Amino acid sequence: MKIGFIGLGIMGRPMALNLIKAGHQLGVYSRRKESCQAIIDAGAQYFATPKDLAPHVEVIITMLPAPADVEDVLLGKNGVINTVKPGTIVIDMSTISVVATERFAERLAKKEVAMLDAPVSGGEQGAIDGTLTIMVGGDAQVLEKVQPIFDVLGGRTTHIGKLGAGQTAKACNQIIIAETIVAVSEALSLAKASGVDPEKVREALMGGYASSRVLEVHGERMLKDTYAPGFKAALHRKDMHLAVDQAQHVGINIPAATYAMQCLDRLVLKGHGQLDSSAIHLLVED
Amino acid sequence: MKIGFIGLGIMGRPMALNLIKAGHQLGVYSRRKESCQAIIDAGAQYFATPKDLAPHVEVIITMLPAPADVEDVLLGKNGVINTVKPGTIVIDMSTISVVATERFAERLAKKEVAMLDAPVSGGEQGAIDGTLTIMVGGDAQVLEKVQPIFDVLGGRTTHIGKLGAGQTAKACNQIIIAETIVAVSEALSLAKASGVDPEKVREALMGGYASSRVLEVHGERMLKDTYAPGFKAALHRKDMHLAVDQAQHVGINIPAATYAMQCLDRLVLKGHGQLDSSAIHLLVED
Repeated sequence: MKIGFIGLGIMGRPMALNLIKAGHQLGVYSRRKESCQAIIDAGAQYFATPKDLAPHVEVIITMLPAPADVEDVLLGKNGVINTVKPGTIVIDMSTISVVATERFAERLAKKEVAMLDAPVSGGEQGAIDGTLTIMVGGDAQVLEKVQPIFDVLGGRTTHIGKLGAGQTAKACNQIIIAETIVAVSEALSLAKASGVDPEKVREALMGGYASSRVLEVHGERMLKDTYAPGFKAALHRKDMHLAVDQAQHVGINIPAATYAMQCLDRLVLKGHGQLDSSAIHLLVED
Repeated sequence: MKIGFIGLGIMGRPMALNLIKAGHQLGVYSRRKESCQAIIDAGAQYFATPKDLAPHVEVIITMLPAPADVEDVLLGKNGVINTVKPGTIVIDMSTISVVATERFAERLAKKEVAMLDAPVSGGEQGAIDGTLTIMVGGDAQVLEKVQPIFDVLGGRTTHIGKLGAGQTAKACNQIIIAETIVAVSEALSLAKASGVDPEKVREALMGGYASSRVLEVHGERMLKDTYAPGFKAALHRKDMHLAVDQAQHVGINIPAATYAMQCLDRLVLKGHGQLDSSAIHLLVED
């Protein structure tokens, strides 16, 4: 397929590369052209703006840090919306709010452009390996058309529901991970403060009901006191604010998620935003 | 071995039965003789008090609900301490505090009786199947002597460290499970309140970084709205109070664990103490 890929950061770059390797024709745009170089070398065509790129492709993928970036690329002065052909499909794989997703989709629909929200989990390694977990919201028939793309990028694609449902699933994902990081962190701190080897405790707990991917992967980071990302605290913080905002919007309280968010706020304020988000453990140990 | 087993409740009964099946000679005591009947039928000898039982065995296992029960059975008027032979090993598999464990061990040591703390995780099913996770604190040489017993009862025995370390590991276990229950509950509630199918969300998240045994087992309970235990909220509440007390004792804050404890407090106050502790979800949905 002819695919436009916008946003070539830590996640977007390996994803775009995998699409080229799988035989797709790629047009790319990034605010910083230098971040496109590896992709251009691999055969992608560079465009100076999203507006220049849009008319040349059937599918446009956005993989950007925040709602404002997605808005700019899709609806801005040099945005996709100005030149996009009817029938084009926009897949936003960024993590943004449901509300923003709905607003962007509504605007695109007026140009007969369908949109899917398809945020991912699995981090840089998942992007490199093409094993991302992809959570899709939007029309099932639209999803069917682009399924081959998801098959390249992800190990597993789940159609969660209507437009925005992918973002809701991602919010749930980020809540659970952040809260489980806090849980593991508190437990390992209790062990250490009690004069007990936290490594032994983690080992004992791994097979039982307390076992989780977080205990396995982030628990090891905490024990080794090494917080190279992984997934940066600053981004996890952003995602937790989206989730807590969404909870307020739909009228429920999620106090433990709010506490985990505040931990990430503190971590970023202390200048640790570039560490893996499991560095929350540095606060509990404070 | 000649083993005394004290406390034949939901956990103790299948554990004692497995020891008989494995060829050990069992003497048993329980406040309610009727709860011993199945074990007596299987070949165990019943004793009217722990004091009567103690001189006849090499190892005494206690599996009781709370510190006061363990104290009564070990150190009370009709307790083990009055008649126990030097060289006997006491294994307390109850979940109690580190402080109480140390106190009991000190008293027993004066009778030349060694004690291990060996609380378990894995619930009734793990007790029946002999696949409990056993977390042991105490002397390694003592543990070595009773390892064959743990091999019958557990799928996995970890020597965590000095006396009390097993209880610390268990506290860590209970903290992580309670906090992860809260996390999964908040996430599924956010999905539902957002008009998204929580079952789809759980399905999508199962393979990724948010995956945990709690998401798998307790998440299913929440989706089906069925809270047959499992592990009773009233007992999980007791364990969380032990853990939070321990944290205060060793001088650290565990705010998310404290919040999970308060959820269990509320659940029990509302009369749901006999439900599985994942019924915390009933509160989040309130």
